[in-house]
Amino acid sequence: MESVESMKIPKVIGTRDFYPEDMAVRNWIIDGWKRVSLRNGFEEYDGPIFEYLTMFQIKSGEEIVEQLFSLKDRGGRDLALRPEITPTLARMVNQRINSLPRPIKWFSVPRLFRAERPQKGRLREFFQWNVDIIGVDDVLADAEVIFTTVDYLRSVGLTSKDVKVKISSRKLLSAVLKQIGISEDKLNPLYVLLDKKPKVPAETFETMLSEQVQDKSKVYKIVQFMNAASIPQLEATLMMISDERIQAYADIKKLLLTLAFMGIDDFCMFDPSIVRGLAYYTGIVFEVHDVSGDLRAICGGGRYDNLLRDFGGPAMPATGMGMGDCVLEILLRKKGLLNVPIRQLDFFVAFADLRWYGDMYSIISKLRSRGFNAEFSYNSNASLSKQLKVASERNAKYCIIIGDEFKDNNLVVKDMEAGKQEEVEVDKFFAELKRK
Amino acid sequence: MESVESMKIPKVIGTRDFYPEDMAVRNWIIDGWKRVSLRNGFEEYDGPIFEYLTMFQIKSGEEIVEQLFSLKDRGGRDLALRPEITPTLARMVNQRINSLPRPIKWFSVPRLFRAERPQKGRLREFFQWNVDIIGVDDVLADAEVIFTTVDYLRSVGLTSKDVKVKISSRKLLSAVLKQIGISEDKLNPLYVLLDKKPKVPAETFETMLSEQVQDKSKVYKIVQFMNAASIPQLEATLMMISDERIQAYADIKKLLLTLAFMGIDDFCMFDPSIVRGLAYYTGIVFEVHDVSGDLRAICGGGRYDNLLRDFGGPAMPATGMGMGDCVLEILLRKKGLLNVPIRQLDFFVAFADLRWYGDMYSIISKLRSRGFNAEFSYNSNASLSKQLKVASERNAKYCIIIGDEFKDNNLVVKDMEAGKQEEVEVDKFFAELKRK
Repeated sequence: MESVESMKIPKVIGTRDFYPEDMAVRNWIIDGWKRVSLRNGFEEYDGPIFEYLTMFQIKSGEEIVEQLFSLKDRGGRDLALRPEITPTLARMVNQRINSLPRPIKWFSVPRLFRAERPQKGRLREFFQWNVDIIGVDDVLADAEVIFTTVDYLRSVGLTSKDVKVKISSRKLLSAVLKQIGISEDKLNPLYVLLDKKPKVPAETFETMLSEQVQDKSKVYKIVQFMNAASIPQLEATLMMISDERIQAYADIKKLLLTLAFMGIDDFCMFDPSIVRGLAYYTGIVFEVHDVSGDLRAICGGGRYDNLLRDFGGPAMPATGMGMGDCVLEILLRKKGLLNVPIRQLDFFVAFADLRWYGDMYSIISKLRSRGFNAEFSYNSNASLSKQLKVASERNAKYCIIIGDEFKDNNLVVKDMEAGKQEEVEVDKFFAELKRK
Repeated sequence: MESVESMKIPKVIGTRDFYPEDMAVRNWIIDGWKRVSLRNGFEEYDGPIFEYLTMFQIKSGEEIVEQLFSLKDRGGRDLALRPEITPTLARMVNQRINSLPRPIKWFSVPRLFRAERPQKGRLREFFQWNVDIIGVDDVLADAEVIFTTVDYLRSVGLTSKDVKVKISSRKLLSAVLKQIGISEDKLNPLYVLLDKKPKVPAETFETMLSEQVQDKSKVYKIVQFMNAASIPQLEATLMMISDERIQAYADIKKLLLTLAFMGIDDFCMFDPSIVRGLAYYTGIVFEVHDVSGDLRAICGGGRYDNLLRDFGGPAMPATGMGMGDCVLEILLRKKGLLNVPIRQLDFFVAFADLRWYGDMYSIISKLRSRGFNAEFSYNSNASLSKQLKVASERNAKYCIIIGDEFKDNNLVVKDMEAGKQEEVEVDKFFAELKRK
């Protein structure tokens, strides 16, 4: 082992080092997610970073399965780093399906991994906010998930001029596709293709679509559906009505009404071009996009009523949302909304003479144990003025000076912003501090 | 992929599912670590979950290298899940060695991985609190690390009757071993063996030691050193004094004096049997043990002045500590100190009649967006009394009832603990809430 010494090893491409200034951003984003989740009634959970490989081969969609980081345990069993947390959620809920009180409103902020080529807003290692509601069939649950998403976006200063929640329904899409004449078994691969529509030029999309759907009139009808701007427009352009479609329309209308009651209708719009790539969606689907359209989706989600059953549990309605940290951070930075608080010291403790150095330790440790962020200079030879300079650089609210006054048991407490200072008896200082 | 449907897959052995009640414990422990780190002047950092495998082969000690979870990236390069964060810290600091202001006082709460057989207090996936000070040669830095450790342990209610910080010095141990006649190149493997002393019966230890050190008188002297109860006793039993030993003694004495100034001398004791298994320690080493001795070490740390240089950087003094979550949780549970706060709702909003259901959404969403944790019943057919029962089960502070009074724009606000209720005009309610 000693032979590999003295070498410089870089970090792995697509991963991030979080220096304190980067960590402050990460914490600010994650703390915001957690705060909004809690006030919307979600409880936090988490699973392991790795699971058995087969877990992710059940329903995660081809793109995700191709990009798994796989590893083996000591017994040679195949494991994988989690690329999403929904399969873990399904596993955990199924394990305790009979004892968990319903509705299950859970959130998580998992660290996730995808072995893809790193691009803008897509890294190999990232954080993703997930909120899920399990056990509620009503679109009210979808409305709660969307409201929670918007509640967060609004809380960091984004407005309906910056971002839009685009909402559609897999149920509606499948009903329309089947009416157009697409057979049931062709639906899943078609979703993956349709999901690419907003990401490629219109012509390219139609060419790609024509390769999967030979009949030109069918291609035309699919494009017409996906371009519709409103539900009435849809009803007008596609005359055939099935029970399935009536139900899907009713769901979306009820959802939009509920979102209006919740006061976020300005953020929300119906958009039939929203499909979502993952195979497990069954009902309402949505994505949040920046209005300028420069970035990838900020988040996406929807209903996945079959997933728990697919993981060996009972049939159970479920809906949820996932928002990564990378695109969000790019957007907030662009909008000047990355308002990460500046680090501030409560106290800096300085000493005028080396003989007080031991007393300084004592005062520092008392301040800290009472919850105050307190610092001092490690350089025991630093002059008082140099120490005060450090206090100022470190953005201290107060500077405590241990000088000649300490012989009479007094401290000098300087308010760094006001520039004022006063002499206080040590015990009195700590007694008053306690009451803060 | 569809063929693997409907199967129940377990979690991987040695990993943990964090259901909300487990997550509350994890968050409570980690939040405590973070709070104490910040008040002691440490800034948070983190690195990637995986690094190039070679990173961990440099200085991590044989036991750790054997227990790595390894994986490959798309290009076939060998990676490993981090078993500790110190190599990442060394890499990150070296990368910015010229621009980082010193001293570097950093902390982290990394998720770590070891592919070992799970045992009590040792899992394959765990969290570890790390605090490190880089750039300070003085034992003051070691004292700060130890104080921060004790500051946390005290903050959760542990006393000096529950836990002890056992302190020794690798410098002292190496000076003693060299004086006894152990050659320099035999020191590293000997440390690994000596580290096992507290974990095996005295006889077994002496037998193991005799296999590495043939000379019986040397074995006797090593055991005598490691059993010494105090510095004076050491000086008396081992008469030979070298400059190196004098310096090592002086360091420990200064450290113990500083810890006394900091007011934690009751927690700290000199114990020459503390060695630490890792190869990179160079000076002060310490471990925290529960006084009953039933558990593994709660944490361990020490000085590692050569590590940055070993990772291709300059020579740079450094010292730090690592505390895992597993043993700590067992200890706190045993002592009845796992005081995880009980989840409480600020508001539960109930409605007396279905016609107010939409207004309920509106009130709920306003409460949440103002930062209050607010919930309601998903069952729109639930009677008012059933809703109030749910409010009570969910531990709500207040219950807002939307009933007949709402026709006059009034809400009924019920204080659930006091059992009192009052009628408030909706706008007045929100105006007063704002001022809370």
